Order: sequence, then C-alpha cells, then structure tokens
Amino acid sequence: MTLTHEQAVEAARGVAAVIAKDALERDRANAEPLAEAQLLRDAGLPALLLPTSVGGAGLGWTTALRVVREIAVADGSIAQLLGYHYVNVANLWWVGGVERWGRRSAEEQWLWGDAVNPTDPDLVLTPDGDGYRLNGRKNFATGVSSGDASVVAGAVEGTGEPLLVVVPLGTEGLATGGDWDNLGQRLSASGSVTFTDVVITPEQVLGGIGPDAATPRSSLVTPAIQAVFGAFYLGVAQGALATARDYTRSTSRPWLLSDSPSATADPYVLATYGRLVAATRAVEALADAVADHLDRADVAGGALTWDARGELAEHVAALKVVATDVALDVTSTIFEVTGARATSNAVGLDRFWRNVRTHTLHDPVAYKRREVGDHYLNGTYPPFTLYT
Amino acid sequence: MTLTHEQAVEAARGVAAVIAKDALERDRANAEPLAEAQLLRDAGLPALLLPTSVGGAGLGWTTALRVVREIAVADGSIAQLLGYHYVNVANLWWVGGVERWGRRSAEEQWLWGDAVNPTDPDLVLTPDGDGYRLNGRKNFATGVSSGDASVVAGAVEGTGEPLLVVVPLGTEGLATGGDWDNLGQRLSASGSVTFTDVVITPEQVLGGIGPDAATPRSSLVTPAIQAVFGAFYLGVAQGALATARDYTRSTSRPWLLSDSPSATADPYVLATYGRLVAATRAVEALADAVADHLDRADVAGGALTWDARGELAEHVAALKVVATDVALDVTSTIFEVTGARATSNAVGLDRFWRNVRTHTLHDPVAYKRREVGDHYLNGTYPPFTLYT
Amino acid sequence: MTLTHEQAVEAARGVAAVIAKDALERDRANAEPLAEAQLLRDAGLPALLLPTSVGGAGLGWTTALRVVREIAVADGSIAQLLGYHYVNVANLWWVGGVERWGRRSAEEQWLWGDAVNPTDPDLVLTPDGDGYRLNGRKNFATGVSSGDASVVAGAVEGTGEPLLVVVPLGTEGLATGGDWDNLGQRLSASGSVTFTDVVITPEQVLGGIGPDAATPRSSLVTPAIQAVFGAFYLGVAQGALATARDYTRSTSRPWLLSDSPSATADPYVLATYGRLVAATRAVEALADAVADHLDRADVAGGALTWDARGELAEHVAALKVVATDVALDVTSTIFEVTGARATSNAVGLDRFWRNVRTHTLHDPVAYKRREVGDHYLNGTYPPFTLYT
Amino acid sequence: MTLTHEQAVEAARGVAAVIAKDALERDRANAEPLAEAQLLRDAGLPALLLPTSVGGAGLGWTTALRVVREIAVADGSIAQLLGYHYVNVANLWWVGGVERWGRRSAEEQWLWGDAVNPTDPDLVLTPDGDGYRLNGRKNFATGVSSGDASVVAGAVEGTGEPLLVVVPLGTEGLATGGDWDNLGQRLSASGSVTFTDVVITPEQVLGGIGPDAATPRSSLVTPAIQAVFGAFYLGVAQGALATARDYTRSTSRPWLLSDSPSATADPYVLATYGRLVAATRAVEALADAVADHLDRADVAGGALTWDARGELAEHVAALKVVATDVALDVTSTIFEVTGARATSNAVGLDRFWRNVRTHTLHDPVAYKRREVGDHYLNGTYPPFTLYT
Repeated sequence: MTLTHEQAVEAARGVAAVIAKDALERDRANAEPLAEAQLLRDAGLPALLLPTSVGGAGLGWTTALRVVREIAVADGSIAQLLGYHYVNVANLWWVGGVERWGRRSAEEQWLWGDAVNPTDPDLVLTPDGDGYRLNGRKNFATGVSSGDASVVAGAVEGTGEPLLVVVPLGTEGLATGGDWDNLGQRLSASGSVTFTDVVITPEQVLGGIGPDAATPRSSLVTPAIQAVFGAFYLGVAQGALATARDYTRSTSRPWLLSDSPSATADPYVLATYGRLVAATRAVEALADAVADHLDRADVAGGALTWDARGELAEHVAALKVVATDVALDVTSTIFEVTGARATSNAVGLDRFWRNVRTHTLHDPVAYKRREVGDHYLNGTYPPFTLYT
Repeated sequence: MTLTHEQAVEAARGVAAVIAKDALERDRANAEPLAEAQLLRDAGLPALLLPTSVGGAGLGWTTALRVVREIAVADGSIAQLLGYHYVNVANLWWVGGVERWGRRSAEEQWLWGDAVNPTDPDLVLTPDGDGYRLNGRKNFATGVSSGDASVVAGAVEGTGEPLLVVVPLGTEGLATGGDWDNLGQRLSASGSVTFTDVVITPEQVLGGIGPDAATPRSSLVTPAIQAVFGAFYLGVAQGALATARDYTRSTSRPWLLSDSPSATADPYVLATYGRLVAATRAVEALADAVADHLDRADVAGGALTWDARGELAEHVAALKVVATDVALDVTSTIFEVTGARATSNAVGLDRFWRNVRTHTLHDPVAYKRREVGDHYLNGTYPPFTLYT
Repeated sequence: MTLTHEQAVEAARGVAAVIAKDALERDRANAEPLAEAQLLRDAGLPALLLPTSVGGAGLGWTTALRVVREIAVADGSIAQLLGYHYVNVANLWWVGGVERWGRRSAEEQWLWGDAVNPTDPDLVLTPDGDGYRLNGRKNFATGVSSGDASVVAGAVEGTGEPLLVVVPLGTEGLATGGDWDNLGQRLSASGSVTFTDVVITPEQVLGGIGPDAATPRSSLVTPAIQAVFGAFYLGVAQGALATARDYTRSTSRPWLLSDSPSATADPYVLATYGRLVAATRAVEALADAVADHLDRADVAGGALTWDARGELAEHVAALKVVATDVALDVTSTIFEVTGARATSNAVGLDRFWRNVRTHTLHDPVAYKRREVGDHYLNGTYPPFTLYT
Repeated sequence: MTLTHEQAVEAARGVAAVIAKDALERDRANAEPLAEAQLLRDAGLPALLLPTSVGGAGLGWTTALRVVREIAVADGSIAQLLGYHYVNVANLWWVGGVERWGRRSAEEQWLWGDAVNPTDPDLVLTPDGDGYRLNGRKNFATGVSSGDASVVAGAVEGTGEPLLVVVPLGTEGLATGGDWDNLGQRLSASGSVTFTDVVITPEQVLGGIGPDAATPRSSLVTPAIQAVFGAFYLGVAQGALATARDYTRSTSRPWLLSDSPSATADPYVLATYGRLVAATRAVEALADAVADHLDRADVAGGALTWDARGELAEHVAALKVVATDVALDVTSTIFEVTGARATSNAVGLDRFWRNVRTHTLHDPVAYKRREVGDHYLNGTYPPFTLYT
C-alpha cells in the first residue's frame, strides 16, 4: 500500500464528510460502530503506521495524529477508535511481534482494539502447554468489539509477570458486553469484555510489559495514547466551532437588545468566537509540535533515551492539559453564540461537550498538571505507567 | 390557607425529596409534568404569593424564591414551572385582576402558565362583541400545557395595543404542541401553543402591558422572572454539588497516582469542591439579598419609583450574571471530582449541566453584563422590556 | 462614647474621603501611617467594638467589618491597620483582660498592633519575679510601630506555654524595624519588631492561647481576622472599580476601531464593567452574610460551641476564597476598561492590584479551598490555628 | 556580517544573561536604555534582518522573533526596543529605501526607533524646496531617544498624503521628552518626541503609506509588529516562570498546613506550575507557527496577495489574544507559588506583570478577539491599519 501524508489526510476528510452527516443519529442509536470501522478500512487508514516492509504505508505519527484529528471533527467516537488502534498497532513493534501480526494486519486493514486498562482488575494468563489460557474481565475495552484483533494485557498466574498478547475477534471464549452506555464517546465500542479460557498460542504472545521489561521505546505507548487524546480533543473542539458557525450563520438571530442587524455582526458573538478560535489555534500549534516530537522519538527507536522519553512525555502532558481546558470551554460556550433555540435536540449541539467531558476524565487532568509542574520545578520525569 | 415561610420551605423540601428520587427517569421520559404539578398543589405551594384577602398565604418573594431554589436542588424543570407560575400569578395583581382570578386560583391551588415570549410573533386579539377572539401561535410557552390557566399576551388587531389576558386550560381553541424536546429543562412544559379563535371575555382581560401602560410596579414582572432564574440556577448548582458529593463519598476511587487513601482525601478533589462551594455560597448570598430587595419593591407597591425599580433590576441582573457563570462551572466541573465512571448514563450526572446550559440562554448573559456595566458606568437604568 | 452603626459608617467614609486624596502619594512615600492613624482616632473608630461598660461604643462586627471595607475603598493599607486592630482589641476580652486595658483604650481611642504571626520564630517569655522578660524578633508585625499598644504572643521559657501579653508603644526594649518595603499594603506598618528584655508585668499578661486553653470563643480570632481580609479585599475591589470608572468617564477614548462615540458606550467596556461589578456584588453579599454570622457567634459568647465555631470558620473561608479571586480579577482587569494611558505612574491605577496581590498571599488560598472542600465533602471543621 | 540563526539566538541569550542581572535595578532607575542598546549592537543583533546585499545577516522573521523572545525572558523593555526596531528596519525595504539606509544601518548596527503611532495627532510635513520641514509632537515614540535613527510618519500639508520619512538621532529640531514614566516597560524609551522645523531631504523620504499606497507586502508592518508583541509577551511569561522557579526552589517554605516536606513537593504548587507551564507551551507553539507564517509571507514579497496577508493577520491576531491572556495569568499567579515573602520589593517579582499589563493595552485585546471571530465567522479580513 502506498499512501502519502496528504493522501491520508484527504482520505480522513472523506470519511469525516460521510460520518458527519449522521453523527447525531448514530450517537443516539449507540450501536456498535461496525459500518464506521468499515469506512476506515475502505479508506486505507488502519495500515497507515505499519512499516512498508510488512505492507503498511510506513507513515509516521504526524500523519496518524492528523488523521485522528480530522475524524474527530466529525465524530469523536470514531476518532477514539482509530487513535487507540494506532497505539495498539504501534505496540506490535514497540513490544515485539510486528512481523507475525503486521503483514496480515496491513493486508486486511485490520483495526486493533485493546484490553489493557490498568485500573481494572488483572486478567489472568494460566500457563498451558507452551501457551496460556486467558481468563477474566475488563470493564472498559475500547475497540475490542469492533476491531479485527486486540492487544490484551494479562498477568501470568503464579509469577504475576505482565504480558501483552493478541486476541483476534471471534476467538472462542471472548465475549463482549455491548454495555457501554455513557454520556459521550458513545460509538467508541468501549464496553466490557470477558475472557473465558481463551487459548493463547506462543505466537499470540507479544512480550513482557512490566516496568522491568520496559524500554524507552516500548514505553512510548503512553505518550502516544496521550497524544491521541490531545489530537481528538482538538478535533472535537474544531468540529464544535465549525458546527456552531454553520448554525450562527444560517439560523441565529440578533438579540432583541442588540444594535446589530444580524447575529453574525453582534460584538459579543464575534468576540466570543474570536476567544475560542484563538485558544483552539494555540492547541492546534501545540498538537502539531507534539506530533513532530513523537515522530522523532519513534524514529529514534532503540537509540531513544529515558530522558528523551521523559521530555516527550512532559510535552504531551502539556498538550493534554491545554487541550482539555480549551475543548471543555469551546464545547460548552458554543451555545452562547448560537442561542437558545440551538438547545433543541434536533440540533444536538451538545454531543461535542458530551464527548469531551466524558473522555477527558480518562485520567485526571489535575495529575497531568502536577506532572508538568513537577518536571518544570524539579526536573523529574514521570515513571512509566499506562498514564504517564 | 395559612402557611409560614418555614412551612413553605419545609413543604418545598418535601416535594424535592419525592421528585429527586426519579429525577433522571422523568428527565429521560420527557413527559408532561402533570404528577409533579399535582405534588406542588398538594403541598399548598402555588397559592403562596396570593394575598390572604383572596385566600392565599400572603407570603412574599423571599419565600417564593427560596421555594423555587429548594425545588431546583432536586429538579430544575419543576423549579422553572413553579417559578414562572409565581411571576404569572403576581401579574394578576401587578397588571390587575387578582380579585377576579385570585380567589379561585387560591382555592384550587392553580398553577399558571404563560404565553408572553416577545421573541415569538405576536398573537392577535380581534375585537368581538365586548371581548376578543385570540389567534396565533407561540413556539415556547412554559406551563401552559401543565397549568390550570395561563396569562397570554396578544396585540389588538388594528390598534396593536398589547393586552394581557387569561386563558384557562381546556378552553376551546387552545392546543398545546407537546413538542418541547430540548437538551435540558425537559420537564418544564415549554412547548408550543396554538390559539384558534379562542373566545376572550371581558373578565379574562387583565389589562394593558405596553410601555405606556407600564408602571414601576407592573414592570416588576421582569426583575421577578430574572430573580427566579437566579434562584433556580443556584438550586441546580446546589443539587449538582450534593449529588456529586454523594457519588464521591460512596463510589469514587482515589487516582492511581494519588498518595491519598481515598478520593475524599485527595488534595485536588478537596480544593475543587472548595472552589465550587465557595463560589456557590457567594451566589446564595447574592440571591438572598436580591430576594429581600424584590420583596421590598413589591411591598412598596404603587409607591415604587422608576429609579427604585431600576436599582432592583440592576441588582437582579448582577445575580443573573454570577448565577449563570457559577452554575455552568459547577455543573460541568463536578465530573472532575467524581471521575470517569460517573459518566455512565445510569448515573446521569449531566442533567444539571443540561438544565443550566439550556435555560441560561433564555436571554444572552453578555447583554446582562452590558446592562450591569451600563448602570455602573453611566448610571442608566434599562428600559422596561420583558428581558430588562 | 456613643456611636451608631450609621454614624460609624459615615465617619469611616469621612476618613476615606480624606485619605483617598493622596493615597497614591502616601503609597509612594512608604512612611509610617501616623497621620492616618490619627484620623482614625479623631473619627472615634478605634473604640467601636469595645463594650459600653468600659467606655466603648459597644457596636458589633457587622459595623467593624463595614468600616474596614469603607476605608479599604480609599486605602487598603489603612483598612488592614484598622481591621487588625479590631481583631486585637477583640482579643482583649476573648482571651481576657478587657477590664484592665479596655477602659484606657476606649478613652484614648487606642489603636492596637500585634506580633503574633506563627510562621515567625517564637518570642520567648522568661519568668522574672511575678512577671516576665520578653525577648526575640518578629519579621512581620502589623501596626506595632503605629499603634498605641500591641498584643504579643510569646512562649514561656522552659514550659513553652504560649501566652498573649500587652506591650504599649514606647516600652523600653521594644524596637520597630521600619523595614516593610513590599509590593503592596505599603502603609500597613507591617515591618519587623524586636523585643530586648522587655519587662512584662502580671497585668500585661492577657492569658494562655495554646490549643488546650482555646475555647470556641477565644478561637474566634481566626474567623475574625479572615473576615477582615474578606472585607478589605472587597473594599479594595470596590475602590478599584470606582477609580477606574472615574477615569473611563473623564479620560478614556473610544478605540480607533470601535463604532462607539465614546469609551463609555463601547460594548466591550460595558460588558467588562458588568462582569466585574456583578462578581463584586456577590462578594459583597457574602461579606454581609459572613459579618452577620460573626456577629452572632460573638454575641453567643461562652455559649458558642465548637461546631458553631466550625460553621462560621467555613463560611468565612468561603468568603476568603471568592474575595481573593474576584479582587485579583477586578484589580488587574480595570486596565482593560481604562486603556493604555491609564498605565501612567501619574495615575497609579496599579496600587489596587498591588495591595490585593500582596495581602492575599497571607495564607495560601489553595489551602482555604481545601478547607472549604473538606468541610463540604467530609463534614470536618478545621482545627484551630491562627490560619483556620 | 555573517550570523546564523543559532548564533543569533546564542547572542541573544548572551545579552539576556547580562541584562537579567540588574533588570530590577534598571527598571527602578527608569533611565534611557543606552547601555542596553549598545549591548544589542555589540552582539550584532540589529542588522540581523537586513539583506546580505547591504551587509546584513539576511536572516528572517523566525530568527528575529526568537531573538526578541530570548531578550524578553530577561527584560521586556529591551525586547520591545529590539522588536520595534526589527519592524522599523523591515519597513526600509517594505516601503522602500533599503539601499539608501540599509548599508549604513548594517555597518554601524543601527537601532531604529519610530514615531508613527496613529492615535496621536498627525505630524505635519510642509513642502520646502524638494524636501519638507517636519513639525509636531508624538506622545509615545518607542526607541526614538535611544535609537540611531527613526522612521516617522507625517502628513503632507495641504494634500494630507501620509509619508514615511527617516530622521537620524541628533537631527536639529528633534527633541525627545524623556517623559515615559509608566507602570511597566519602563526602559522601552517610549516617551514623547517633538519635531520643530526638522529638515527632511528627498533621500529621507521612504514613501507613501496611505491605504491607497499600501501593498500586501508594505502592509506587513502590522502583522509584524503584532507578532513582536506575541513574542515578547511569551518571553516575559517564560522569564516570570523561570524567576519564580528559582525562588520556589531556593526560598519558599511549605505551608504550615501542608503535608509536604518542601514547597517544591506541595500538590498545589506543582499543579499551579503545571497549569501555567502548559499554557505557556501552547503560546510558544503558536508563536513558532506564526513566526514561520510571517517568514513565508515576507519571502513571498511582491507575490503576496491580500488574501494571504489577511490569513497571516488573523493568525497573528490569534497569537496576540492567547499570549495576552496567558502572560497576564502567569505573571500574576507566580506569586501563589512563591509565597508572601516574595512580595518584598527586594525580590521585585512584579516587574513581569507590570510589563505585560502595560503593553498588552497597546490595542484592546477585545478588538483582537472580534477580529479573529469576524474572520472565522464571516471570512472577512481586517482592513489594513496600524493595528490590524
């Protein structure tokens, strides 16, 4: 597959244009995003990050994050699905195993889900022959139910050694709950998943992911996922602004007490848009800088140092902080430039706030502020966890 | 009916305790709030403001606004319904007509709706005998469909003279749309209403409400309704905080990277609650001061001057501004002290934000800021409109 | 002395009118506020809180805090001096000793300073005959250098027992540093003070102030001083707004790109004033409610419970939080409604921000937020310290 | 002169290190920045933007803005002086005249001031022979008194045609007021200047600058100066943070009620630093993107379209908005992470806020918000003025 950065962005915009049309209806329906996943595959987006050696497009994180953002302008859920996928697929070679899984993934444009959330109880890998049996439940597991395969973190019974394994969809013993019914990101396929005596063959084992096994490179998983968050919060904010703009232009009326002939000339409407747009542009610039930084760290590969990894993590954390603040502000304030009638459920302008309000709680922004402050004040780097 | 301030507040809390239990389910169902209206009647709250001379409790705005706030802690929609009712019923004697309509209203604990929204097209009153025929449509008319009677503003055909008339529920030619399906305040019975050749008898005519007919007293309708807004935004914020507190105490877990043994000891959780609670207390104090101010203006009656009315309007406008800002902040930020799992739709913690976000757009807060600023800087009072 | 609430407020306004005239010049001169102290004495304000039984006016905290606020409108430093004085004089009877010191204090309208700051090292009281010798240094001691007498906290050598003693100005061995040269509150006489073998007679000993000796009543010192802070932050904010208003009206020009004929008609100028004024009114209402609360606690006297003291402390803490936030916002933002030329040092519009920025650091507002949050979430009351 | 981007940044840091040492003392002294100007010349920074064809370094705006930022970390005033100089020198070839003035400017590392402020009354150019006589006064004219030459805007008597002319320092009839005594940017040499029959020869005339004469290229003067503002607000914010960090590390103590062993471990101190640092990084990223954008527009030269100029202006305006907001927040909030003792005038931590508070009023940020909003909502570009 050949795909340039520009083509990928164009393809993402094409998908965004399609899913934007019924984003609200799909949000209300709360169904599995199977059709949306197929659109991503048809556009050739899933294999974007895979190396050309296994048939991927060999593009980098700058492209991946930009694509996530473009999708998020139309639908935050699908952006989450794709963004998580990119992190999962990157893990194939960061932790090991790209040869084994990459080729098929590239050929069939697989989407990858994951069941690695460390705030849930551990899944258990019981040794069995030269492989394992996997048992347990994760309450939240994005993309498992809609993806072609998933990366799953479990602890080996007895030793507690944490391993990352691959479980294709359709594997016997894998059951998805379809029970994600939350305020936002409703189509992100983030429900529970249960593993009952799932057979894990040796080739399904990607490698160890404990603190000891971690290398700067393999620990890029956290900066990468946090950069994905920043990218899709930004995209949702941009989508909110663009949707509000359409409404203000086409439908909003000047306020009774305004001297302005139209809502689009009202001084407060204009200044509010300006405040929100300016803040969003700053997030955009930081997101671009962070994407470039992640790209460089990724390319450094084995030469990446812990210090360099720490600098990246801090840069990404700063993005998480400002993207959260700005996206919450934008998605709530757009109502003030569209007006009372825009609260009609036929308009559904709240979906942007719901998406951002829901996902920004993934890990508390207060602790991201602390992380950035600790680095600035004390020069410390956060220890590697799936949140830092 | 005799009812003291304390009894009224107690009765309101009783109703609040009942409707709090299924506030979320009722919100989802989006039905006419008929059962809720009956609870208000059974508690003797509707006749609270009516003078004892016609059988009311003869209580003042301090009590009315406090009751609205208490109800809003449990359900912002029902608080809106009751608050609008109080303004409508006050209009019975501010504009005229309390004798005619007050007695029956007190006896039967009538709830009054209204169809007066000036941003909708005018309803037309066509002279017919010694009365009128009423025709037209209002897109938003709170409480008409759930109330016992409504005050309705129409313009006399030919002269354009604006009159306020009474239309009991069940009147022939009155049709309610049941079409209020908005983001928040879902149970506020705020849908459309259509009048088709509705017969208006002379005793249904309350009086003229044009700028010329307005007196300081009759124009209290706007400060009163805006004070109602402040009261229920405050109540919703208080309800949001209390609901979040229950959740944090019972369910939230300390963050993975927190040194605290529980979410209730986390320094960021504590400081965030503190920030929100402190801000809410300031709004509460201002709401109390405003209620007292409105009470005094109401008691002044015919002696009220335009200047005194202007001072009140400015005080109320200040409340509207800070209640809006604080209620939006509180209702969005509570998620940060409850955590990611609190976004489950089974919890429904978003209903507070939805209610505040929806109703605070009733009239743009930017123009309320301008109004307060214009008074402070230039000493001007806003002209009487249904928004100022 | 007889003085009503209204007379006291009027007298305070009289002093404010005088000191407002050269507030900026006096701020620049950074001298001891001796003339200002004399104005307060001449106005009969220092003895306001003293009981009539010793010749005071017998007024309560509502009056004292209102007087502090009125003075702060003109000059935050002098408000601090007077506010601290009120707390010091209240300690005369909260801790004991009003009979001994109150009469002379009332007769001569004494102003009291203090040297009790617990973040400084302890002063040492060495037993000597039936009294003590006092030695040591306090880095910050408001009003000692300008007051007639001071309350001083020291620890008894050997036992470490904390005592509160009285040291009149001019006492041998008492030396003031005149070394307060800070960003704001420049005339608050807050420099260092050194005690060298100062003789303390038994009648100069007010009583013990350790945690064990504390009663709900004697521990009112902290809510009282924190309420003073709230009152003068509010007053400074009000003074900043009023000064800005004069400037905007008299001097500011409409912006080049504005459609408005004057700065006073500019939509952004008006809305910014409105936002600041509304926020300030909320603080004012909360300050009024807190003053009333403190008054009631003070009147309760020995009947005051620890729980009631805790409720008061929390109410006061909420005021501290919002008064800090609003005063900082107001005093920095006034420049945006006055314009670039208002930054001339001949205007000196920055003194309001400097005063608020300096004093709000007395104790970190983050910990006040935590205190309010801890009470709301966990029902805890802060332990008695000189900060909580 | 040869100078690379890296060398220029290094040279700027060298100057910054020198002037940082006594930034506070120099600020207090409020003298003409003659020594500072000489440091800039010695470092070879003034000729940085001049083309190599006349002996300049031929570097672009990316370098110029970065140098301004680096200087601003140490001293906002000197950064203003240098930033304005870069815009003035760019005008030499944007309006015309680089050949005539550029060579000497490069050889002698001239610093250029300006007297073009359009909110002041016009200077008058009276035709005289083949040149003019210049008369009038500008109240604010940055760098005229400390620069080697200035660009001056005047209107031709009779026709009113606006011309830009060059006036070297020391010209007969040119008098500087030395009367800049403002809150901040005290060393920016921004006082008044009076022209009395100053002889303007033909070679001193750069060209017309009226709306009709303006080309996209010549009108880059406004985006350039506004980008300079963004760069130095950012630098001041970075300097404030770095200075606060030094203080917190070396001097701040943990709060009495904190569980933390040091101020550098306090959760609120850390999170506050984190919030400010993250916001500053977003401004930095936007400033970098804007610098690159300006560079490209400058390089486009005569091929630059009005639309492309408009896109640039909007990008720069967004930077102005967020840089203003963040710099004000950072410079006021640093006190909360350093503590009460950091308000000592010996520390002088307020100079950052004073600098930002003063200069951000150059043109109202509300109108920049409107400009950004108008572009976003209506697609309009601001008309060319010296503010848009």
